[in-house]
Amino acid sequence: MEAIILGSGGMMPVPRRHLSSVAVRFKESGEILVFDAGEGTQLSFRRAGLSVLRLSRICITHTHADHVTGIFGLLMYIAQAPRDTPLAVHGPANLARFMDAFYAIESRTPFPVDVQEFSEEGLIIETKNYRVESRFLRHSRPCVGYALTERDRPGRFDAAKAEMLTIPEGPERARLHRGESILLSDGRTIQPEDVVGPARPGRKFVYITDSLPCKGAYQLAEGADLLVAEGMFLHDLKNHARKKWHSTATQAAKLAKRAGVKRLVVTHISPRYMYKDLPLFEEEVQAIFPSSLVARDGLTIDIPGE
Amino acid sequence: MEAIILGSGGMMPVPRRHLSSVAVRFKESGEILVFDAGEGTQLSFRRAGLSVLRLSRICITHTHADHVTGIFGLLMYIAQAPRDTPLAVHGPANLARFMDAFYAIESRTPFPVDVQEFSEEGLIIETKNYRVESRFLRHSRPCVGYALTERDRPGRFDAAKAEMLTIPEGPERARLHRGESILLSDGRTIQPEDVVGPARPGRKFVYITDSLPCKGAYQLAEGADLLVAEGMFLHDLKNHARKKWHSTATQAAKLAKRAGVKRLVVTHISPRYMYKDLPLFEEEVQAIFPSSLVARDGLTIDIPGE
Repeated sequence: MEAIILGSGGMMPVPRRHLSSVAVRFKESGEILVFDAGEGTQLSFRRAGLSVLRLSRICITHTHADHVTGIFGLLMYIAQAPRDTPLAVHGPANLARFMDAFYAIESRTPFPVDVQEFSEEGLIIETKNYRVESRFLRHSRPCVGYALTERDRPGRFDAAKAEMLTIPEGPERARLHRGESILLSDGRTIQPEDVVGPARPGRKFVYITDSLPCKGAYQLAEGADLLVAEGMFLHDLKNHARKKWHSTATQAAKLAKRAGVKRLVVTHISPRYMYKDLPLFEEEVQAIFPSSLVARDGLTIDIPGE
Repeated sequence: MEAIILGSGGMMPVPRRHLSSVAVRFKESGEILVFDAGEGTQLSFRRAGLSVLRLSRICITHTHADHVTGIFGLLMYIAQAPRDTPLAVHGPANLARFMDAFYAIESRTPFPVDVQEFSEEGLIIETKNYRVESRFLRHSRPCVGYALTERDRPGRFDAAKAEMLTIPEGPERARLHRGESILLSDGRTIQPEDVVGPARPGRKFVYITDSLPCKGAYQLAEGADLLVAEGMFLHDLKNHARKKWHSTATQAAKLAKRAGVKRLVVTHISPRYMYKDLPLFEEEVQAIFPSSLVARDGLTIDIPGE
């Protein structure tokens, strides 16, 4: 799995910084999910070399302009490709009304666009490879965070041990790897745990933005392999941030620390900070949570599995 | 008057080329009108140093995504300014339905947004300084071109001649300049034409895009000081252009020539052409209509008066 920052800006784009968007790509299947799609996302999506055939879902945190105005352009860009597989757009309140404008301007994508507005938090997507959970955050309008969790994968099969136990190659080994016990022709019963290691937990990606610190954010982030979280302002502006329903870099770092995540990327940077100011963010977050980065457009973060 | 190309691309943005948008600024009053607002317009508007307080109207040619997806971002950018004067958005079919999405995502601009969808061509705006006329073009959906014409200004007042005629300075001269005749105390009657030159015709800016060559385009363009017109493809792709309801650079040049315009800027360049390909457009149009330029984002064209 890898995450690609398509846009690291909040409120307004500035030079070298498009509005909020992050893509997650499963390296095995190639499938891509995009979280938020602010103005400019289609350009960053293309620059990142992502496949228009593999984008399956766009998950929107909330319908403020800086998080949604790139959806239409992204859909139209993808519509240039010879693709007929559906594309889903998920999000809370007002998403459907916003998406209605897409039909006003262009309904001729060669693939179905499936708008899934939800009003309750919880499990919103479940496939054979992953699930996506949402929780409401604390913002000036209904806004959710997302946790994308891979299905646990079976443990590694220990071929050397199987050899020692003289288990024949073929369907018997496959059954053991699937978790079934087998009866060998010599009368021995072999249990999966004899030759299969512990199940490998799926990786967890969490995206939290446009919120005051809150319980929902902590619940989502717990144990994430990668947390991409809003740190819109440096902490000296924490009062201003609170007034605007946003989090500071320090608050993002504290969330990461408390939730025990492996790695943090701070994003949704205010337009008041220029590119040259970003090291100040790095300093602030790394003092609290060393395994932190500050987002730049195009940044790709590997999420290694076990 | 001057025109500023905010985005010179059609269909999809490419590096150095945002989607369709052109601003017209009246140097005297500072008032700004924007024609089309594709994705990225807010960024180009800011880069061009245009005043958020002076943008009075956004005129949309049609509701294809590449012409409208920047409206919301532009409005949100302007909403950062301490402004309460209304801003109008004009355009044909489906504009109101598209603009409804703006209320779904953010209705709190500190100024009223006045959406004026029209279904018939003709005079759509009239102020004390200018009027805007629209005409339907030939595209795959309702699409209009626009002609923005300044009011004629009074002729120049010839002070030397007035001196010779011993017309006192003050209100008498002002009345003559306004077009009234005056009776002097010595019994002479002075006519305005004795001291005022011929009325100076207002300048005319015309914007035509996303259309096959058509009569409406010609009628609008006639006698324009500046015509900004679509030349999406080089003419070797004229069959492809026709199939897609678009014009070639050659067709733009022929329109300019036939309509007797002073200057042509070709825009709405297809994403298939890179920045380095633009001289090919220049060659093609200048062979037919020498007073031509090919649009680049940020290009500013002066529209001098008489």
